[in-house]
Amino acid sequence: VKKRIVTGDRPTGKLHLGHYTGSLKSRLLLQENSEYEQFVMIADMQALTDNFNQSYKIKSNIYEVVRDYLSIGLDPNKTTIFIQSQVKAISELTMYYLNLVSIAKLERNPTIKIELAQKKFNSSIPAGFLCYPINQAADITIFQGEVVPVGSDQLPMIEQTNEIVSRFNRIYNTNCLKKCTAYISPFPKLMGIDGQHKASKSLNNAIFLSDTEGDIKEKVKQMYTDPSHIHISSPGKVEGNVVFAYLEAFHPDKQEVEELKNQYRKGGLGDMTLKNILNKTLQELLCHFREKRAKVKDEEIASILEAGSHKANKIAEETMQQVRAAVGTNYFIS
Amino acid sequence: VKKRIVTGDRPTGKLHLGHYTGSLKSRLLLQENSEYEQFVMIADMQALTDNFNQSYKIKSNIYEVVRDYLSIGLDPNKTTIFIQSQVKAISELTMYYLNLVSIAKLERNPTIKIELAQKKFNSSIPAGFLCYPINQAADITIFQGEVVPVGSDQLPMIEQTNEIVSRFNRIYNTNCLKKCTAYISPFPKLMGIDGQHKASKSLNNAIFLSDTEGDIKEKVKQMYTDPSHIHISSPGKVEGNVVFAYLEAFHPDKQEVEELKNQYRKGGLGDMTLKNILNKTLQELLCHFREKRAKVKDEEIASILEAGSHKANKIAEETMQQVRAAVGTNYFIS
Repeated sequence: VKKRIVTGDRPTGKLHLGHYTGSLKSRLLLQENSEYEQFVMIADMQALTDNFNQSYKIKSNIYEVVRDYLSIGLDPNKTTIFIQSQVKAISELTMYYLNLVSIAKLERNPTIKIELAQKKFNSSIPAGFLCYPINQAADITIFQGEVVPVGSDQLPMIEQTNEIVSRFNRIYNTNCLKKCTAYISPFPKLMGIDGQHKASKSLNNAIFLSDTEGDIKEKVKQMYTDPSHIHISSPGKVEGNVVFAYLEAFHPDKQEVEELKNQYRKGGLGDMTLKNILNKTLQELLCHFREKRAKVKDEEIASILEAGSHKANKIAEETMQQVRAAVGTNYFIS
Repeated sequence: VKKRIVTGDRPTGKLHLGHYTGSLKSRLLLQENSEYEQFVMIADMQALTDNFNQSYKIKSNIYEVVRDYLSIGLDPNKTTIFIQSQVKAISELTMYYLNLVSIAKLERNPTIKIELAQKKFNSSIPAGFLCYPINQAADITIFQGEVVPVGSDQLPMIEQTNEIVSRFNRIYNTNCLKKCTAYISPFPKLMGIDGQHKASKSLNNAIFLSDTEGDIKEKVKQMYTDPSHIHISSPGKVEGNVVFAYLEAFHPDKQEVEELKNQYRKGGLGDMTLKNILNKTLQELLCHFREKRAKVKDEEIASILEAGSHKANKIAEETMQQVRAAVGTNYFIS
């Protein structure tokens, strides 16, 4: 029996190279691994928890995200791609789980604490936002997910999910829910072109998978290097230099990257030359994505999502039948 | 077009005379009123918010409640009786609403505050319990409920529901949700036989609709009267005297009750005589219920609940189609 992987993205905009190194590359590997069956969820209900008044953007964002998936090589025949809101049983399961987690516990969740500090809810935290880890536990467990790819900052989410699983199974004397383990991406977090923060759409410091040749060139040109490296002949710093971070992440020849680093440290390698090399690397990678992307039709996306959601619903319903039987709310089953 | 009434009970045990005067009598009147279409929901999901670890009792409690309904004369051909958990779209709607109410607001809800003081959650308030007013708003609005029978202590719930309706309609630029108004029962709250608290199952001071002849006689005998009324010839107090409260609520002849009061106040009417009169009154009322109750078969209950839930689901789905269209999550509708 294959282990199920459950992962996904919030449809809040196009995906960028940070997503590519952080999660998409792993998904490509996992999709080819016969030990696993991969489910990629577009978490529109979760996106609404802090974007409830921008829901008009949500459909086009979903289409962009799927376009990104297909352009990098996610294969809907191998990976089930579906929309969270279309699996309505997730809401039902969330209702059962809401009784098993205290408000105090949610308020202590380290991931939520950090996110609350970043967002501008002030004292008006939407209940849906505070409760989203519970919703996330339902997302994972309804598909009997056993492996969940996450960043290390999201480990508290996995812990919360497993606590709910233990509690539910104990209270309702069942073993219908499975615990999951985190799969931490082997690739480091990608810096934004500003060198100050990780790549992020909202900080406007990311290179998108769908960027044009001109966009990419311009962003590479703006990339933060070593501000004290003014003369080509002077030694330059590699650490914190975004161009090197991107070369490490995307240049196909590790040996060549090492040589460039040595040369840069010694002096004699100009930023312009270096950026031209990176530009060439990124253009080669992204032009493949762009080509595939251009071929994806809206109808194809719709049918992938509909088929994926259909499959996801079938699995979710199987779990829910066990959940309702355990709680005792399956009244009309004799 | 008939206005929809949405009301219901938590299936936490058999119903008693407090329910009868507080809500069931109103339902009997409203069921015959051609201005209204009445929906009575058995709120099992809500019962789970503070009884999640006693779910094994829930099915038998549901059956007892429906038996009570049928015994007093609720007619499933006129009143739709259904189970909350079987209308799964309520959970879905709750998820949309959770984003529109802040945790701070929920914590300020006066009804919740009182209930929290009564319950023994300590600092560990289940998220499901704090959020149940949001779930309740979904219960009402998914059926386009316009009239909601409540006790005056539950007015904050109606206010919370209408706030959600306003917010949802404004944010999503729709008018698919209707505001509701409270229908306050014209009958006063019924005292428990102890004369200290209102009639309540958990305080063990209530006469159940399903009590036997012997139960009723014994409970009337135990009823709190005027503790200083020791001699039959002495004047007695009518205020706070539970026997008179019950005579006022259940004796068919108001004139006779007034005469008994006058006699009791003057002196010369003994508690035993008075209790015999009340016992006769209650026996007559409750023997009708008991007779009907004995005829109700489990299969009849199951088919009423199944048909009612089916009808409720149809209406809920109509509302949800509008809700999803307003939010923009109806992706597969062209």
